[in-house]
Amino acid sequence: MPSKATHDPNQVTQGKNWMIQDRYTEVKDLPGHEGEQVTIAGWVETVRVHGKVAFIVVRDGTGLVQCVLVKKELSPAVWEGGTEDLSQESTVQITGQVKLDDRAPGGAELKVEGLEVLDRAGEYPIQPKEHGVEFLMDHRHLWLRSSQQRAGLRVRAEVTQAIHDFYYERGFTRIDTPILTGAIGESAGTLFSTEYFGETAYLAQTGQLYVEAACPAFRKVYCFGPTFRAEKSKTRRHLTEFWMVEPEVAFADSEDNMRLQEEFVTYLVERALDRCSEELEVLERDTSGLEKVRPPFPRMSYTEAVEFLQSRGSDIEWGRDLGGADETILAAESELPTFIYNYPTEAKAFYMKENPDDPRTVLCNDLLAPEGYGEIIGGSQREDDLDRLLTRIREEDLPEEAYEWYLDLRRYGSFVHSGFGLGVERTVAWITGRPHVREMIPFPRLMNRLTP
Amino acid sequence: MPSKATHDPNQVTQGKNWMIQDRYTEVKDLPGHEGEQVTIAGWVETVRVHGKVAFIVVRDGTGLVQCVLVKKELSPAVWEGGTEDLSQESTVQITGQVKLDDRAPGGAELKVEGLEVLDRAGEYPIQPKEHGVEFLMDHRHLWLRSSQQRAGLRVRAEVTQAIHDFYYERGFTRIDTPILTGAIGESAGTLFSTEYFGETAYLAQTGQLYVEAACPAFRKVYCFGPTFRAEKSKTRRHLTEFWMVEPEVAFADSEDNMRLQEEFVTYLVERALDRCSEELEVLERDTSGLEKVRPPFPRMSYTEAVEFLQSRGSDIEWGRDLGGADETILAAESELPTFIYNYPTEAKAFYMKENPDDPRTVLCNDLLAPEGYGEIIGGSQREDDLDRLLTRIREEDLPEEAYEWYLDLRRYGSFVHSGFGLGVERTVAWITGRPHVREMIPFPRLMNRLTP
Repeated sequence: MPSKATHDPNQVTQGKNWMIQDRYTEVKDLPGHEGEQVTIAGWVETVRVHGKVAFIVVRDGTGLVQCVLVKKELSPAVWEGGTEDLSQESTVQITGQVKLDDRAPGGAELKVEGLEVLDRAGEYPIQPKEHGVEFLMDHRHLWLRSSQQRAGLRVRAEVTQAIHDFYYERGFTRIDTPILTGAIGESAGTLFSTEYFGETAYLAQTGQLYVEAACPAFRKVYCFGPTFRAEKSKTRRHLTEFWMVEPEVAFADSEDNMRLQEEFVTYLVERALDRCSEELEVLERDTSGLEKVRPPFPRMSYTEAVEFLQSRGSDIEWGRDLGGADETILAAESELPTFIYNYPTEAKAFYMKENPDDPRTVLCNDLLAPEGYGEIIGGSQREDDLDRLLTRIREEDLPEEAYEWYLDLRRYGSFVHSGFGLGVERTVAWITGRPHVREMIPFPRLMNRLTP
Repeated sequence: MPSKATHDPNQVTQGKNWMIQDRYTEVKDLPGHEGEQVTIAGWVETVRVHGKVAFIVVRDGTGLVQCVLVKKELSPAVWEGGTEDLSQESTVQITGQVKLDDRAPGGAELKVEGLEVLDRAGEYPIQPKEHGVEFLMDHRHLWLRSSQQRAGLRVRAEVTQAIHDFYYERGFTRIDTPILTGAIGESAGTLFSTEYFGETAYLAQTGQLYVEAACPAFRKVYCFGPTFRAEKSKTRRHLTEFWMVEPEVAFADSEDNMRLQEEFVTYLVERALDRCSEELEVLERDTSGLEKVRPPFPRMSYTEAVEFLQSRGSDIEWGRDLGGADETILAAESELPTFIYNYPTEAKAFYMKENPDDPRTVLCNDLLAPEGYGEIIGGSQREDDLDRLLTRIREEDLPEEAYEWYLDLRRYGSFVHSGFGLGVERTVAWITGRPHVREMIPFPRLMNRLTP
């Protein structure tokens, strides 16, 4: 009884083309249509009229193209449509002939033959002048259209695809870990909570404990999703909601873990350099430092780091966690990301493996990005000894019952394993050379910002 | 001052190998090591002793392998280690010679030469008998290790990678939309909320409004992340936290939208058939129906659907939304997924485009999976007319102020656009032929389940 399909099935292919691209040519594809008549649709960025010639720059989401109108060759309606009151961000459909031009952005321009205004925009709030950050963030839904924002978010999208590709190619199984969790997490003081059918649920700060559980099923796993910190931080490195990728590997120790991190970070940087060169140019990123990123990354133990900081006049004492300022000093020593490893037990989370060579410390590492971007990775070998893990849970006064299932992983076939978490926004901020993580996510959430 | 790297950089390659695979051979790779001595590490699934020969099946997370112990060829310590008290799920390291054997799962077995018990497991709670679902769900962190659970979650992982690949290959830009949102969403009654620095934030039910905003920047975009419904539903189709992929395309109408859905769903099914044949076999999935999935899918208007249901004795009246039972009847008419399109305005969300040919309806569609799996997609062309959208917001008594930014998208260059959301767990349940979505996500969240 279903009615017959009304379209031609032969038009549907399993390739990379589908129907919408038949109606409009995408601007990025114009150089392949030299001399042809095409129709594009997009938004007006600028209009300049010089007497009897006019230039409209159109953005269609795949690129920018300059459209040239010559008055004497067009009907009065088309000429007027393209030159009078054609406000910024108006939606237009333009038919014209493709001309290659090396000077044009994207390599082609359009000799206009027809123009239709699909929607005339009101006066656009964002003008090519200095707006304050709060104003721009209030208009984030429109600010996304600006060239630097587009470029930054394209790099983000490339990096996120690269994350999936890296682990997929290496046989990792993706495990989507829950956001709504019972009473677990690193620090109850920085958890968002919600009423959950009579119980209290907390928004996950990490998927780590869950990916650990998946190791005996899949050996190498990772999760990648949003994580939450209800921190009252207003620094340029903090978001309340950010994306983190967390691989976890069975039978890998802390040394293996750092090797994986080197390989992973190098892969992400190479991928961005390889496929986002235009975007990095828009962002005026000096890529000379990025081009040097390859293993091995320099390594410094926490103890060495404290001695180094003290030699530079810091009053840091052994045992205290490193702060942002400390990290900046340490990372300045190298153009590569720098490992700081084996922190004091009391400065780190309960699940980290005691260092057999120095039980005051745990087998862990942070990875500090160069150029002052600070910590982009935190990782560790996990405590696989049931009794030591229980001792740590009790020392930290954590709710033992909530960790029963996690302790089970040490009761039924415990195993050496390690993993880490890489923060996407901080990594993309470093790669793009942007000062603040808030531009590295489409709709940032900060202490004082929940909209748009 | 950072100390020198302590490992050999030449061992780090940009290829698909890294160090951990040097220490242990992965079971999936054994057929490539015929006659060689290798060492594996994994968990004991079964031990059978037949006099002076014993068989241990080991799972290492990449596959299963039978390890054969011959008493007279082994030291007493190794023989005893492998045959006495070697409990299920104990962690072992085994060295042996690879022998190809077509009868063996994975095509190889291991002639044991050395065996070390890395950790002896306590009595494993999950036994090869019928456990109740609640018991298994309480032990989800261990249940993941069972063969059918592994198979189902491997298909999920393949499908999620396929989702990213599909959109990446087609030039879509991934947009990660926020989970924490102000007062928006389809239905305030089914929202989870949290205190957010003095404000109230809601957990997003959809990223749609945000991907719409990204269209004028990137043309074709998608989001893919967890979404939340505080619904008091206990059906086999509902989770409170589930993953949804939501593409949105500028200059695409409802017809284009259905074309994209056909191509997308076909791609996911083909990918699972192509790369998860072993897993589908473990799940005893009859794939004959899946192999027929290709465009075009049958289409039925909502009005036709109501007439059809009435002809089958249903008391449904025009105007009411379709329920799960209705969907099952409609989907039973075809082995392919079935589109139901253009529902009554009052049955659907405010943002859907009024149908110019019949203003009682909107330009939308659901896609029903065959075999009783119900709705896997909901999609629509979006209302791009500012005044009509405002009217709908007021009719539905929604908080107009919260939608100001969304209305801006109709003020500054409005455009025809369409999109949809596909629920991952329902789609994977259909592809794997499993009855309940709760097994299609690693750690399900249900009305009565927040742990582990």
